[in-house]
Amino acid sequence: MVDSSRAEPVDLTDVSIDDQFWNGWIETNRETTLEYQYEQLESSGCLENFRRAASGDSGGFEGMWFADSDAYKWLEAASYVLADGDVDSDAGLDESRRNELEKRVDDIIDLVASAQEDDGYLNTYFALEEPEKRWTNLNMMHELYCAGHLIEAAVSHYRATSDSRLLDVATRFADHIGARVDDEIDGAPGHQEIELALVKLARVTDEQRYVELARTFVDRRGRNDRFEREFERVESIAGYDPDDGGIATDARGAFYEDGEYDGSYAQAHEPLPEQETVEGHAVRAMYFFAGVADVAAETGDRELLERLEKLWENMTSKRMYVTGGIGSSEHGERFTDDYDLPNETAYAETCAAIGSVFWNQRLFELTGNARYADLIERTLYNGVLSGVSVDGTEFFYDNRLESRGDHHRRGWFDCACCPPNVTRLLASLERYLYARGPESLYVNQYVGSTISTAVAGTAVELEQTTTYPWSEDVTIDVRTEDPATFSLELRVPSWCTEAVIRVNGDEVRAGENDTSGEAEYVTIEREWDEDRIEVTFAQSIVPVRMHPAVGENCGRVALTRGPLVYCLESADNDRPLRQYSLDLEGEQRTRKDDELADDLENAALSNPVVIDCDAIAPSLESWESDDEGGATESSGTDRPPLYQPDDRVSTKSETVTAVPYFLWDNRDPGEMAVWIRSA
Amino acid sequence: MVDSSRAEPVDLTDVSIDDQFWNGWIETNRETTLEYQYEQLESSGCLENFRRAASGDSGGFEGMWFADSDAYKWLEAASYVLADGDVDSDAGLDESRRNELEKRVDDIIDLVASAQEDDGYLNTYFALEEPEKRWTNLNMMHELYCAGHLIEAAVSHYRATSDSRLLDVATRFADHIGARVDDEIDGAPGHQEIELALVKLARVTDEQRYVELARTFVDRRGRNDRFEREFERVESIAGYDPDDGGIATDARGAFYEDGEYDGSYAQAHEPLPEQETVEGHAVRAMYFFAGVADVAAETGDRELLERLEKLWENMTSKRMYVTGGIGSSEHGERFTDDYDLPNETAYAETCAAIGSVFWNQRLFELTGNARYADLIERTLYNGVLSGVSVDGTEFFYDNRLESRGDHHRRGWFDCACCPPNVTRLLASLERYLYARGPESLYVNQYVGSTISTAVAGTAVELEQTTTYPWSEDVTIDVRTEDPATFSLELRVPSWCTEAVIRVNGDEVRAGENDTSGEAEYVTIEREWDEDRIEVTFAQSIVPVRMHPAVGENCGRVALTRGPLVYCLESADNDRPLRQYSLDLEGEQRTRKDDELADDLENAALSNPVVIDCDAIAPSLESWESDDEGGATESSGTDRPPLYQPDDRVSTKSETVTAVPYFLWDNRDPGEMAVWIRSA
Repeated sequence: MVDSSRAEPVDLTDVSIDDQFWNGWIETNRETTLEYQYEQLESSGCLENFRRAASGDSGGFEGMWFADSDAYKWLEAASYVLADGDVDSDAGLDESRRNELEKRVDDIIDLVASAQEDDGYLNTYFALEEPEKRWTNLNMMHELYCAGHLIEAAVSHYRATSDSRLLDVATRFADHIGARVDDEIDGAPGHQEIELALVKLARVTDEQRYVELARTFVDRRGRNDRFEREFERVESIAGYDPDDGGIATDARGAFYEDGEYDGSYAQAHEPLPEQETVEGHAVRAMYFFAGVADVAAETGDRELLERLEKLWENMTSKRMYVTGGIGSSEHGERFTDDYDLPNETAYAETCAAIGSVFWNQRLFELTGNARYADLIERTLYNGVLSGVSVDGTEFFYDNRLESRGDHHRRGWFDCACCPPNVTRLLASLERYLYARGPESLYVNQYVGSTISTAVAGTAVELEQTTTYPWSEDVTIDVRTEDPATFSLELRVPSWCTEAVIRVNGDEVRAGENDTSGEAEYVTIEREWDEDRIEVTFAQSIVPVRMHPAVGENCGRVALTRGPLVYCLESADNDRPLRQYSLDLEGEQRTRKDDELADDLENAALSNPVVIDCDAIAPSLESWESDDEGGATESSGTDRPPLYQPDDRVSTKSETVTAVPYFLWDNRDPGEMAVWIRSA
Repeated sequence: MVDSSRAEPVDLTDVSIDDQFWNGWIETNRETTLEYQYEQLESSGCLENFRRAASGDSGGFEGMWFADSDAYKWLEAASYVLADGDVDSDAGLDESRRNELEKRVDDIIDLVASAQEDDGYLNTYFALEEPEKRWTNLNMMHELYCAGHLIEAAVSHYRATSDSRLLDVATRFADHIGARVDDEIDGAPGHQEIELALVKLARVTDEQRYVELARTFVDRRGRNDRFEREFERVESIAGYDPDDGGIATDARGAFYEDGEYDGSYAQAHEPLPEQETVEGHAVRAMYFFAGVADVAAETGDRELLERLEKLWENMTSKRMYVTGGIGSSEHGERFTDDYDLPNETAYAETCAAIGSVFWNQRLFELTGNARYADLIERTLYNGVLSGVSVDGTEFFYDNRLESRGDHHRRGWFDCACCPPNVTRLLASLERYLYARGPESLYVNQYVGSTISTAVAGTAVELEQTTTYPWSEDVTIDVRTEDPATFSLELRVPSWCTEAVIRVNGDEVRAGENDTSGEAEYVTIEREWDEDRIEVTFAQSIVPVRMHPAVGENCGRVALTRGPLVYCLESADNDRPLRQYSLDLEGEQRTRKDDELADDLENAALSNPVVIDCDAIAPSLESWESDDEGGATESSGTDRPPLYQPDDRVSTKSETVTAVPYFLWDNRDPGEMAVWIRSA
């Protein structure tokens, strides 16, 4: 790493989470979801593809052509679980499960290794279906994408176990690619992923050539790249089906606009340094920008970093849902236009939110700017967590902000990118809580946890205790091996208007947050020894409004409290949701809802806080057929009025209950709305 | 006609319109639209189809397979124009234009007659394309539909001119059909139309057998009819194309629901007497119900009438737009579910609104109930009139209630049903103003006009003078040949809460309308000689609310004044329309907008009244990047906030201008909204 970075990540193994909110999620992820997804890898044919490729079979590939990546993401997640050494903590893995998981991981690694070809190439779709067409369709066939996930899995497994078998496989494949990058692979990957993976590989192997390879892919994009030329010779490239065009031509819808080629779907419409707005497929964009950030970190390229910050500003000020979700359109799973953020058709793919976490973590490390860690918080608690059911076995691919009751999580998807992505993020949550500066330690996320690390030349242990995000208090105990002077950088969240911070009982910060809506770090520089920091981030219920350019949400508010976005669900509210209008002049009250937690049977929700809010709604009596406006004498039948003058109808007071957005669709199916009319 | 009817229509020729509002529309319709549509008949190939069929050609049919009906509807409209004998009145036809039009009508009649086959059959699609497949696809091929329009044209032409040539053609075709109705034509028509046409034919020829034939078609529908069986033998019926199934299979989407046959698209899901809700293709439904009303009138069938009233109640209380438009869904151009009335995707086909006028006129005649004439008023001024541009050359097929700016009238359509339908309605508007009871005369619509008719055995002339709907005053001068006692029945509109009626200066009715939202007749029974009635229907601006079951319009109002529904358009309002919220506690003011009339260059709009309304809108200053909520110091760039706490943003007062809905999309393209948020 060159000095361009302001902070560096901490090792997963240095952090141990023990948190009232997260323990349940992490345990469900590890015990249920990881297991459930392994079964899916088997039943979907993903592992069978590796077996058959290894045995030299041909034909019969099952699943999406990039299904190898499902196995790699699973391996990555499992490796994070194995890295979690704290078998004794409540949130840890017990010994027998650990042995079982190790065995399973080893078996899959054997399988992957045995499917690798002699020249280092590894992709079961090509091995089984089109061995002669390797590297002919960089655009859609995702060989480099799968390679990237292989590398990520390998790096994680090596870091978790020091066993280099999978890393060797990945390195051989990376070198295979590197040897062809000016020849057969004279383009950029259609779906980014390998860029960030190569930088991880460079860091673990200390081989600069992988950074160079990543930089090559970054630089090529948008510069007369191969995508358009591949479409011109579509009949001779991989994925082409003479009957219906197949995968090779299916992409036309995403890459052509009014018959003209348009590379924006893959961020290839122009070179990155010229891009002003976040465009195209949102997951590709996030993985790309994360990879670019890695390249910027490794090369010290300020221009790349400044461009990323500009793009981040476009995204967060004009193209992002209040949940942190991104990508407005199902068509192309993509960013669209500034302020085009529809609720009911929001795409906001779970993978894109996760990609945003990856990108933001890197931007934070590069800049030390609290706004990036702050957006991770928003995205994690809302746009990511909504992607998985509380029982860990159902998943949202697209995270709508409003539903008439017909949108539900599903057990699996043909394109199963999202479930294992959630799993690898939850299994590596430790990564995002803290970071180390040269003479400082950043506290980015408020999660009950302990970190043991070295700062300013001394061993430091820092223990957070909190019931965040349900409550506003966080206690941080600092213990150093020897008294040492360094800064603790505490993120004050953007939503917090009143932050009180005490060290050993002395107030170091009180009252109104002067950042007015921007997150910031409060720096506490002192000699640390054995000290207690007490933090209170006042959590009031904040109705939030959206920029008026988003016409659909004019006159509506979203209820938030702390980092959580809330929503209305039919399960808690009797009327069709659109009948309610929040009475912001009235009362909004928080309430601990233990019944809700019981209903959901998830320990993570031991103490969920719901919001009861005064509202008004039409008086339905005004609309009955037997009042004077309705019945028609001549026919003697009831005819309720469909239209009435405003002065003939009335409203009544109601109370609505809002629950955290991430919890929606975990009970009886029904309507949901984040943005609610307000009186 | 049996005594089941309470009122009978007046002859077109007995009424002469001279009205500030309607003169312009009628003149544009006659001078521009009729001419324009004739050119379309020629350029679309419609008349050429007749020429080629007459000359015995085969193949090469142009346009939709039911394009013959375009010619027939044009003939019907032209006949109404010819029937308007008042060549001297402002609204009348001048002599040379009349001669020209007569000649053109005669030529087309010659053409139609020459295309009739020896056995009386007449359909140019079948003559040219599939002569051997007559009557094999009643479902979709519209032979009976075209026959119905031929009959309507023929009856109109005969009534206008006493020339029976076209009537003879129609009669021969009707008899051809009658002779085969138990044999080849052992089903009901897929698209209703012939039912009402046959009753017209019965009335003009005094031949009861045409009523019987109409009744047969009415009774067959929904009773094991042929539609489903035709789909089973789809490869052998007309319209089938071996390559892609063609017309014959295209209908599957409309007639099949989840793979199961469902006749509701053509109101054939069950026999009419069992139907509880208005279902299916809205134009078919309206033409059907109009035909059923005719059969009920001719046969005295009370059960049919009661069923129609029940269906009317379902439609008007649960399935009708505030404009009188009907049919919510573009898919199938159909009714959907109760309270499913979306704004932006409203279909509300112009033809369906016109069909509703036809049906309501018949229900009024059968019952003497003011609610039907009242709905004609609402539909005419809003849902129908919006269908044509003020210059008479562009048409809406679907009449949205909200537009982001991308929905516009067009010059013609492949399926050109709507334009000539508007034309024949406007050319026969005289029909809908008055009606005669046994000892009474109904005044249904307030339009400047004169009627000369006989009531209670004496000649009566009644002259209306008004600038309705812009103003609230109507003067009616009654002159009888001899003093005579009868009732004048004046419709008090449903929207009128204060109606004052004076006869020769004496108040016969004053103050609040006790019908509370239902239209009613005020009966003035006296000896009439030479008398003046002065009517004032107080026209206030009334914000209307919609039933809360229509979730989309909760919290919104539509502005109305008198019979007119208003809307906001971008042409009059600077902001994106969804930023406005009407301040109903504030002021709403009417304003005569002569500039608007000048802009639109249509005499009909000499005196248009627009509404200025207090509104509130977000203060855009709250959302600029240089206020304290926005800029980010670290990067030095502007980043306007996308989300802000409610208490950090403010609103400001604005004035919005609303124009009559029928006028929308006649100026610069832009947004439009009928339903507007209200504070």
